[in-house]
Formats: sequence, structure tokens, C-alpha cells
Amino acid sequence: MNDRPIGVFDSGIGGLTVLKEIFRDLPGENTVYLGDTARVPYGIRSAETVTRYSFENAGFLVAEGIKLLVVACNTASAVSLDAIKEKVSIPVIGVIDPGAKGAVMATRNKRVGVIGTEATVNSKAYSRIIKAMDNTIEVFSLPCPLFVPLAEEGLTDDEVATLVAGRYLGNLKDRGIDTLVLGCTHYPLLKGVISKVMGHGIVLIDSAIETVREIKKALREYGIEGNHPDEGTASPLRRFYVTDATDRFIKVGERFLGQKIEHIEKINVGGN
Amino acid sequence: MNDRPIGVFDSGIGGLTVLKEIFRDLPGENTVYLGDTARVPYGIRSAETVTRYSFENAGFLVAEGIKLLVVACNTASAVSLDAIKEKVSIPVIGVIDPGAKGAVMATRNKRVGVIGTEATVNSKAYSRIIKAMDNTIEVFSLPCPLFVPLAEEGLTDDEVATLVAGRYLGNLKDRGIDTLVLGCTHYPLLKGVISKVMGHGIVLIDSAIETVREIKKALREYGIEGNHPDEGTASPLRRFYVTDATDRFIKVGERFLGQKIEHIEKINVGGN
Repeated sequence: MNDRPIGVFDSGIGGLTVLKEIFRDLPGENTVYLGDTARVPYGIRSAETVTRYSFENAGFLVAEGIKLLVVACNTASAVSLDAIKEKVSIPVIGVIDPGAKGAVMATRNKRVGVIGTEATVNSKAYSRIIKAMDNTIEVFSLPCPLFVPLAEEGLTDDEVATLVAGRYLGNLKDRGIDTLVLGCTHYPLLKGVISKVMGHGIVLIDSAIETVREIKKALREYGIEGNHPDEGTASPLRRFYVTDATDRFIKVGERFLGQKIEHIEKINVGGN
Repeated sequence: MNDRPIGVFDSGIGGLTVLKEIFRDLPGENTVYLGDTARVPYGIRSAETVTRYSFENAGFLVAEGIKLLVVACNTASAVSLDAIKEKVSIPVIGVIDPGAKGAVMATRNKRVGVIGTEATVNSKAYSRIIKAMDNTIEVFSLPCPLFVPLAEEGLTDDEVATLVAGRYLGNLKDRGIDTLVLGCTHYPLLKGVISKVMGHGIVLIDSAIETVREIKKALREYGIEGNHPDEGTASPLRRFYVTDATDRFIKVGERFLGQKIEHIEKINVGGN
């Protein structure tokens, strides 16, 4: 039994979709979440800048005494996961590998679509990992930059979202894919619209769900599982840090998380 | 005659709409533009964070030897203009005052709308300045967060933009305003759509154009006007600095500016 927290960071609030799955699937674990809201979004920044920010975020969480680090940001996972793994001495899990694995398992016709931010798509990380697992799979990638602001605005089940999704995804649909990876932690909020546009024959891979599967496996393998909630212990501690003001994070974040955000504090990371 | 450059900063590329008007109206002036692309967007950040970033940007440009500073970002002008003016010893011009003045001059029925980012609207800066000039004017403010990504994506003359504009502006239209301030430097790119949605009876105030009027006045007043282009001198030097990679800035920026971006360099500001 190890009651040190699981650390999760994201550029902002998107990673809360991963945290939500951790709460659901690992309800006894303590968690600490860092949203780098003073420097969000990462998806339009260069690999060099994203890596620098990621190091600073990882360093902050390691200093908080976490037992496992989750990089709950596709952009940071795509461009800086290996570098982070070299820097820290605890297990590190990103969101790209689990999503890619999920897609390889799901596809029947070997045609997989991936949608994400510009930085994630430009990194070709999904395509590289999917092809390393099965090089007969064809991968079609597409950036969907408006999906993040739509999700943050709460316009997720709406005529605007449907129109934007139709515009972006039409081309991908024509490629005859049978599996689509939601390669950005914001996108699960648009699942309904994306599914409607793509049609029901297409499997959507939600990397938040896939990632929590990997987290559970790692906790077991390293022997660092926390309390089991059935053991009647105190409620887990769920701490939040942000690098900009807390009010907007709480407002948008509670919608993402579907529950109250307490224990939140504004901090500085790397002189942001 | 003073050939030191005019310094212009913005959180990213939006301020290029102001720079474009400087090129058009003051073609003999040397300019240096700083886009803080590693920390864009400012519009969702707290006043404290925006002020810190603004100080760092202003400090960088002053060290470049500028003769006048233009804060070509509504968010930074709204929350930190007075603080910047106290810090630097050259004339400083923001985009809020000129836009507010333009609206006061234009309105006949004393009902003015203002659209901008969340931070600009929350600051109530336009409303405060307009009412200080004429307290019989009613001001109706509205944040339009999706307009910035739409402009950056180039979806400015498009079904999506029309639908989003209709959604945002319908409420404002019902208020019976006769003047609408485009309180964000990105919004002039959406002028066509905004004008279509609002109808032709409504005057749109483009703060880029209003701001350049103020810049010309300040250059005259302080006796620091640059070369006149008719004097047959060398072409003005138009330098650009960004805090993240140059490629995306060049791609999107050339569309904003309607001309080539040369002399561009990536720099670090305040350990961003």
C-alpha cells in the first residue's frame, strides 16, 4: 500500500478528462493535478517550448512527492515524453501510447484516423507508434484547432459544434477509416457530435479511458497501489494547482469533471 | 526627424491588424513588433498575469531603443496600460482609449456595444472610459471567445463564422445599439461577417484604425516623427520578434498583414 499521490499535469483543463477516469476507476488513490493555465494552450507551440514547460511541470509534481506521473496532455506526450522519462525516476505515463494501442486493437480494416492539435499532428507521434505495432495499418491524421475552444466554451452539443465537426471530419470519413483516435484530452467532451458526424460504424478511441488502463497496470507492476476504497479509509485527497487565477479553472473544470473542485491553489512554475 | 522605431507588442498575431494600419498610414516609420506567442492568449488570463507579461514585453522593446510604445492588445491595454505608463519614460498608446473615443464620436442614440475577450470584457475598461467621456451613453459588453480561433484559422468569411457571430451577437442586436466596438485586435478580420449579422445601420469601430490616428497625433506632439516616405530615403526597417517558433507566426501573420514577414527572430522574454 502506497498512499503517495498520482501526479497529473496538462497544459490547462483538458487533462481533467483523464483525471475523471482516474476518479472513476481508481477511487482510492490520492491525486494532485497541475494545470499550466498561465501558458495554455501547448498545441500551437513549438516542440522546444513544450518540452521546457513539461520539464517544469514534472519537476513541480515530483517535488510534491508523487509516486507516478501522468502526462495528461497529448501535445506534451507527443513531443516530450521520452525526455521527461529520462529526467524523473518515477514511472511516467503519457496519453499517446495508450490511445495508439487502443486503435491497433480496435481496427478491423487497418485504416485509422487520428485527430488532435496542430502540434500533436505535426509530431506524427500516433502514426509512428501505431505503425511500430502494426505496419500494415494506414494512419490519417488531421488537426482540429477549433475543438478546444468549443469544448472550453461548452458548445459541445450544438449546431456550431456539428457544423465545425462536419467541416473537419468530412475528409477523414472519405478515407474509409473504421477507428478514430480522439488525440486531444479535450475531445471526449465532443464525443457525441464527433460520433454523430462520423456515423455509428466507427469506433472512437478515448485516450482518457485507455490511459487509466495503463495507469492501473503500472501501479500493480511497481507495487505502488493506493488504498482500496472498500477498506473504509478516509476520502482520497484530490489536490489542484494552476499557474493562473483559479476562478476560470474552477468554472470550466467543474463542467469537465462533473464534480466540485476544492483544494485548489495558484502557483508559479518555472517563472511563467 | 527621429528614425528610432515605433515599438508594438501584442500577445500574439492580433496586433498585426494595428501594425498594418501603421504601415498604411505612416509608411516612413521604422517598426519593431513583438508577438508573445509562447504565452498567447492573454484574453483568458488573470489581470496579474497579463500585467507581468506586459511589463516584460515593454521592457524588451524599450531596450531595443523604441521612441513610442503601442500596446496593440486589448487585454493588456485594458488591465495594464496605466502600470506600463508608470514604468517606461516614452509615450505609450493603448488600443482601448482610441476605440472608446471613436465610439463616443459615432453613436447617435447613445447605445454602444463592445465585443472582446473575456479578460477585456471583465475589466470593464471600455465601459469606464466611454462613460467618463459621456455618462449618458449605455454600454453593452459581450465576450466572443471563439472569434480569435476563427480568425487565426482563417475561417473569417464562412458559414461557421456566420453561425458563431449570429449566436454571439443576436442578444447585442436586440439592445438597439447603433455602434459596435471591435474590442479585440483579431476582430477586424471578421468585420465582413460581423457587419452582415449586425446589419448595415450599425457603425463598426475598428480600434486599429482609431489607434493609428492617436499614434500620429503623439508623434507630432512629441516631435518624434520619422522619415516621410516622399523624401526618397531607404525603405523603413520592419523587424519582428516572437517568443515561440517563427513558422506559425509567419504563416498566419502574413495573412493578417497582407504582406511578407521578413527580419523575424525568436527571443526569450522574462523566462517564458
